[in-house]
Amino acid sequence: MALADLERVEKNVDGIQTAISILKQRFGERLSTGQSLREQHAHTTTYIPSQLPDAVIFAQLTQDVADIVTICAQHKVPVIPFGTGTSLEGGVNAPAGGICIDLMQMNEILAVNEEDLDVTLQPGVTREELNIELRDKGLFFPIDPGANASLGGMAATRASGTNAVRYGTMRDNVVNVTAVLPDGSIVKTGARARKSSSGYDLTRLLVGSEGTLGVITELTLKLHGIPEQISAGACQFETVEDACNTTILAMQSGLPMARIELADALMTQMMNAYSGLDYAAKPTLFIEFHGTKRGVAEQTELFGDIAAEFGGSDVLWVDSTEARSKLWKARHDAYPAMLAWRPGCKGIATDACVPISRLADCVAETVRDCEERGLVAPIIGHVGDGNFHVSPLIMMDDTDEVARAEEMIERLNLRTLAMEGTCTGEHGIGQGKRRYLKLEHGVGADVMAAIKRSIDPDNLMNPGKVVTVHS
Amino acid sequence: MALADLERVEKNVDGIQTAISILKQRFGERLSTGQSLREQHAHTTTYIPSQLPDAVIFAQLTQDVADIVTICAQHKVPVIPFGTGTSLEGGVNAPAGGICIDLMQMNEILAVNEEDLDVTLQPGVTREELNIELRDKGLFFPIDPGANASLGGMAATRASGTNAVRYGTMRDNVVNVTAVLPDGSIVKTGARARKSSSGYDLTRLLVGSEGTLGVITELTLKLHGIPEQISAGACQFETVEDACNTTILAMQSGLPMARIELADALMTQMMNAYSGLDYAAKPTLFIEFHGTKRGVAEQTELFGDIAAEFGGSDVLWVDSTEARSKLWKARHDAYPAMLAWRPGCKGIATDACVPISRLADCVAETVRDCEERGLVAPIIGHVGDGNFHVSPLIMMDDTDEVARAEEMIERLNLRTLAMEGTCTGEHGIGQGKRRYLKLEHGVGADVMAAIKRSIDPDNLMNPGKVVTVHS
Repeated sequence: MALADLERVEKNVDGIQTAISILKQRFGERLSTGQSLREQHAHTTTYIPSQLPDAVIFAQLTQDVADIVTICAQHKVPVIPFGTGTSLEGGVNAPAGGICIDLMQMNEILAVNEEDLDVTLQPGVTREELNIELRDKGLFFPIDPGANASLGGMAATRASGTNAVRYGTMRDNVVNVTAVLPDGSIVKTGARARKSSSGYDLTRLLVGSEGTLGVITELTLKLHGIPEQISAGACQFETVEDACNTTILAMQSGLPMARIELADALMTQMMNAYSGLDYAAKPTLFIEFHGTKRGVAEQTELFGDIAAEFGGSDVLWVDSTEARSKLWKARHDAYPAMLAWRPGCKGIATDACVPISRLADCVAETVRDCEERGLVAPIIGHVGDGNFHVSPLIMMDDTDEVARAEEMIERLNLRTLAMEGTCTGEHGIGQGKRRYLKLEHGVGADVMAAIKRSIDPDNLMNPGKVVTVHS
Repeated sequence: MALADLERVEKNVDGIQTAISILKQRFGERLSTGQSLREQHAHTTTYIPSQLPDAVIFAQLTQDVADIVTICAQHKVPVIPFGTGTSLEGGVNAPAGGICIDLMQMNEILAVNEEDLDVTLQPGVTREELNIELRDKGLFFPIDPGANASLGGMAATRASGTNAVRYGTMRDNVVNVTAVLPDGSIVKTGARARKSSSGYDLTRLLVGSEGTLGVITELTLKLHGIPEQISAGACQFETVEDACNTTILAMQSGLPMARIELADALMTQMMNAYSGLDYAAKPTLFIEFHGTKRGVAEQTELFGDIAAEFGGSDVLWVDSTEARSKLWKARHDAYPAMLAWRPGCKGIATDACVPISRLADCVAETVRDCEERGLVAPIIGHVGDGNFHVSPLIMMDDTDEVARAEEMIERLNLRTLAMEGTCTGEHGIGQGKRRYLKLEHGVGADVMAAIKRSIDPDNLMNPGKVVTVHS
């Protein structure tokens, strides 16, 4: 087996050249065919080899995108939307060449509606930029994947992160999107009302479609008030099972955790080394509560009681912005911490999500698999969602090690599906997980392909990703 | 204009007769062509005239449904799924005849997964039945449309109700569905993990599709822990604007209201009369908080402070199950209370949902419209979501009154859309709102039609509802 199951797509060389010459007239300097820029636009935080687009265009308006897509449709040329390039499963590769639309110059926040707790913005705004803008208004946007990703890209991949246990994922926090469809028409998928029963849920169809059904050029997101009180802490356990069982009981007790993140013993050591911390070399839960002063006090106390039942250490709760930032920065730096642990390696960030009752088993069996195969593979996860990542650190020129990692990942995916889980909780299918889509969804994968064909009959929107069009 | 914009669909008389004779052999006594049963299965809580199916079959298994759909597909016969028959926009009418599949004998709760806070069940289980089953486990399912509807029907119409402000709608609380597709194949739309980035969101596509893409035969729902403390109360205001502004400020303050319901002065009087209460004849907010003892105490206090800023009355908070049940029973009895107010009338329950910042204006303009037209039209709504219902009480043989109600409703829908709202927050499109689908969604309505054609090319699944297949 190969790490990624890349679809063979034939390249329409003539059409691409014609489209580029027409687009060059329309976009001038904003279109580039330079090698390094094209390389940069196929390079992602992934183990999958780069496949370069033939040109990159920097869009500035929805109409720019509509023009590009229309011209490409006329000449049957693929279109690949691009944000921060932080996808993990080959989402921005161009297996059939074509035009990469870079959306990062579309980075305006168009309207913050404070009364409605929503914001309308362009897709190139990053989550950190948005939160800086919102801070003075007492509002924030909670979804935080590891990278400082663009919000359009986060919507396209149905991203989540550490706060999803409390605030949901992009699925739950996108009110509507404006998207350019494969025929160049522009659709707005919904009103600005917070709920609707009006027809098929096109917002949820576009969110998570990974650019295969349309290019998101504007979106409205739900916002949340910055809580009066935020307390964060770390709690250490003897075993991963104890940490998982603490999480389950806390969830069942209705404790409104804003974050509950697990690092296994290995990951904890890596964070110590990279971020200059001194946690014990044990499984660690990082927790955060949001609410009123009294409410959070009550919640941290209850959490402490639950953790103690499973042998958890005392939690030192920190409230100040500085102390919390330090705690979460170490968590967000998990990926560089891994890479630093084994210089020269690549980290293959897998993604599995199971019902929380199966989490401890799934993690334990995966750790055993890694140990048996001599893999250095730290685990970190959003355990309140049953979501975790195991990241084998691989020397890519060691073919035997690559093969052992492949086998472990294959077994992890099959184990996850057998446990009524999903092969990706938040990274998306891209190219890397396509082989599991059919295994997970069965007839559903055929329905997805039918939808894809009905909206994108020529398979021009980010082809070779997510669905297999021809079954 | 007509109250409902019914699509003309040609009836396939021969195919229907052939299918019925084949289905009769397969289902025997469980298939009926009796007039009264067919009438009952077209009758709903609606103003739209009944259009009867040609036969009703009581399904007991997913495979029953698959068999019915397969046979109907072979003979190009429409299929209409049926739950409790409480839809409000003609969702179970059979404009082209066909087979009504009654799913109410599929009423088993298959698995309650307490650790995962989810339940898997058949579509005929009603929300009240589920909550009775869950009570001993300390869990509950929050979504509560006015009727004691079936959970399959609630999923199909993307229903919500009074708790949606805190717990979301069916969109947010359905983990996956099993559905029979128009070709008779069976799809399960997702795993049991609480989040996923695996392919297109087929769960959200089926939820709210109103039986036009498939028949839901099993579903997994999120559950929630019964809170330690529940406090409810009523707060009265001089104006609807004051009540709306209180709601906005409470939402902005991050107060986690479990319910916040508005009755205008007229509706409040009707509730007094029907339920033997003695509220002042003023706009009233009914509020509920869920949480810990200390948390709820803090929240009710904060709410009181906010309401006072807008001239709200003191709130008498009640905690006991009995007192809360009495308060909410009066709210849930709003519909019979309306009908009792004007004996012989029909209540046309409209449904509009706007960004909350526009709610006061939208309600005020609607009240003015009703007054100018001499309509008796109480208002009740889920104001935390910006969702409200105005229900003109009409003598259906008074053609002038019907015309005035039609005009008011038309104006309400257009006003709602102009305010970036949706023409239905929770009732669905059915037949009654089809004319607004295109106005609301534009190109999106075409995308919906394309999806419908790709999954149901012969337009056999609940035809004449939601989408206009042939543009």
